[in-house]
Amino acid sequence: MESEVKALLETLNCVQSSLSDSDLVSQLRQHGEKIISLLKSPPQQIKREKIKEMSSEVIDSNPYSRLMALKRMGIVNNYEQIRNFSVAVVGVGGVGSVAAEMLTRCGIGRLLLYDYDTVELANMNRLFFRPEQAGMTKTDAAVQTLLQINPDVILESYTINITTMDGFNKFVESLKRQVMSHTRGGSTGVDLVLSCVDNYEARMVVNQACNELGQTWMESGVSEDAVSGHIQLLIPGETACFACAPPLVVASGIDERTLKREGVCAASLPTTMGIVAGVLVQNALKYLLQFGLVSKYLGYSALKDFFPTMEMRPNPQCSNEACLDRQKEYLEQKPARDAAKAAAELESAESEASIPLHSDNIWNISVVEDHEPVSSVSTAKQENLPDGLLWELPTADTLETTLSEEILAENGDLDDLQRQLDALNAS
Amino acid sequence: MESEVKALLETLNCVQSSLSDSDLVSQLRQHGEKIISLLKSPPQQIKREKIKEMSSEVIDSNPYSRLMALKRMGIVNNYEQIRNFSVAVVGVGGVGSVAAEMLTRCGIGRLLLYDYDTVELANMNRLFFRPEQAGMTKTDAAVQTLLQINPDVILESYTINITTMDGFNKFVESLKRQVMSHTRGGSTGVDLVLSCVDNYEARMVVNQACNELGQTWMESGVSEDAVSGHIQLLIPGETACFACAPPLVVASGIDERTLKREGVCAASLPTTMGIVAGVLVQNALKYLLQFGLVSKYLGYSALKDFFPTMEMRPNPQCSNEACLDRQKEYLEQKPARDAAKAAAELESAESEASIPLHSDNIWNISVVEDHEPVSSVSTAKQENLPDGLLWELPTADTLETTLSEEILAENGDLDDLQRQLDALNAS
Repeated sequence: MESEVKALLETLNCVQSSLSDSDLVSQLRQHGEKIISLLKSPPQQIKREKIKEMSSEVIDSNPYSRLMALKRMGIVNNYEQIRNFSVAVVGVGGVGSVAAEMLTRCGIGRLLLYDYDTVELANMNRLFFRPEQAGMTKTDAAVQTLLQINPDVILESYTINITTMDGFNKFVESLKRQVMSHTRGGSTGVDLVLSCVDNYEARMVVNQACNELGQTWMESGVSEDAVSGHIQLLIPGETACFACAPPLVVASGIDERTLKREGVCAASLPTTMGIVAGVLVQNALKYLLQFGLVSKYLGYSALKDFFPTMEMRPNPQCSNEACLDRQKEYLEQKPARDAAKAAAELESAESEASIPLHSDNIWNISVVEDHEPVSSVSTAKQENLPDGLLWELPTADTLETTLSEEILAENGDLDDLQRQLDALNAS
Repeated sequence: MESEVKALLETLNCVQSSLSDSDLVSQLRQHGEKIISLLKSPPQQIKREKIKEMSSEVIDSNPYSRLMALKRMGIVNNYEQIRNFSVAVVGVGGVGSVAAEMLTRCGIGRLLLYDYDTVELANMNRLFFRPEQAGMTKTDAAVQTLLQINPDVILESYTINITTMDGFNKFVESLKRQVMSHTRGGSTGVDLVLSCVDNYEARMVVNQACNELGQTWMESGVSEDAVSGHIQLLIPGETACFACAPPLVVASGIDERTLKREGVCAASLPTTMGIVAGVLVQNALKYLLQFGLVSKYLGYSALKDFFPTMEMRPNPQCSNEACLDRQKEYLEQKPARDAAKAAAELESAESEASIPLHSDNIWNISVVEDHEPVSSVSTAKQENLPDGLLWELPTADTLETTLSEEILAENGDLDDLQRQLDALNAS
């Protein structure tokens, strides 16, 4: 562009010496017009070209060499398959934007982004967004940055509020749309949904959509004091859904944002948000590329560097109808699943070595019951709740009446266990 | 800029109609020169203005509202003091660049950056650098991005290789230079050094500089297979230095990079690097702003989501002379430190309540020895090392001859303990 203007100045010298030549003037105008068209092109040119196939060649110009090296290191069997996966990131804030950037840099096939908010300077204490993006929608700003980082990723952005009726329908439709051939965890068009929203209502909406679609998802959250967070894997029917074990206290039907006092906002830190985004996407990579142990729940407490883990089974009394449907399906499919698993294990054992299988049981090892009740939260309840909040879980009185049903359910499970053993013997 | 060129075109129309006026031509040249000067100014204009004082006002345009909220949440007593701190980040790669960005977004006072490498497309699988920065030095690219994110931070960049004699001297001089009044942990001009380098040699150099200066620092690292990492706090004389417990195997004097086979590179992931940068800066914030528990060592194993912690005492037989000097100083200052601590505790106990202090010792609680020997690594040594590697730790035979000295040292410590008790009673 600069040389263009220099050429213009050289032409001017000629104009000065031979003012009678009118061709020079039209030449000047051409220079000027070219400058304008150059200025109208995007301010930041995307310099990185699209790459057809991921290569493991170790050269400075290969953006995938360090990822393909995961194969040689024996961590991932087939890294290239990351290009087949579609991941939805719901909420492009402090956690979601960083998660989207990590997936983009890893070369994910297709990324679906959902948010209705705009970038503000008040977001600058977290990674990803830049001050000059203030005022843009978070989805537009994210697409601008991510496209520049890796043009190989298919980006779809949805500037919608999923907690509205219309937004929810669009959300579900977008998840169902099948764009790529290969998918994991469900019959939808995406392999995984990552929830990176910042409120209870939106989490319940993601939960509803994923329960209805039988879609595996991961939930993430950061506390209001910015020093703790968590991620959780949710497989409809197999693990607890978000409604199976809701938070102890929730907003009573009114907008959570109005609950907060005027002039008060939650604290946040780029460190905590970055760590939660990191463990979330790490768990997603382990799930998609099938390496390591996929965590069911991983907490993070910054003050003591404590990382609790746990597992939550589905609640047979969950308030979510779609969850109960998925639980039923999961139980129905259990004998077939167990038989397939046993057959696979038998095959693996036979192929590895001809070690005799013991038919006796001297150590008294038995098949463990698959449906332990959800562990009850032992936090002592404080009776005086602030206005606008109510207890989500039933009180002990309410619970007692449902205990007899639970015992019945347990007996049902024993019968089910017998059926599984029969299926195992039959296979 | 566009209007400037449009004005130029309008002038051209005049030139066409009145070619005899030579003033118009000089006017044209002025336009051209102004365009060039505009083009030479930074391509991305910094839109965020400098902010004189951190405010906790909850408005969208305040980039510090979510950080100042840490005070109201009871996490940090005085967040604004972050502006008084100087932090050095050595190595601006996958971990260092993200650490620098986190500190910048947190509003750190002054940031010193050290790297001699250039940005390559092969770095794009980690956060921070953008493809269009390929070819720039990492320090220049980092300053470009960080200045735009937060113009309030004082940025100093050093494009030097600290492992050269000249680079080392410049490194030490830059750490000593006192620019701001308030500093923590030493008599240098920085409050903390974060080591984010990727090789043993550079770590030993940071270790040497910090031991010489008595500078508290934190070390970080990520494994070659990209699925584990760690951070460590090093306080010269008080904790183990990097030479006190070196890695089992190190390069034998030759360049580590040539050790690697042709066409082979280490794997890396934006997730692991982001998590390590996150826990590193979180630990730095806890250390600087004095909240929570500052971790001495925190490991991260991605495959199993395992986060080991440990503590390493200094090695009285450390090969690093400066470390031994700091250990000696630390021991000499121990009686005074203990007396001050006991006095502070006494004062705190007296002011809190008038609970009687027990002079008897029914639980048999005693002062624990401060100098346990460094825990020995129990990994079975493999005898056949590849060419270019050697064992860093002495073999059992070599160690045996030094054991008697160790016993003497232990006796010395007991005398020291007696002196401490005397000092305690005297105060």
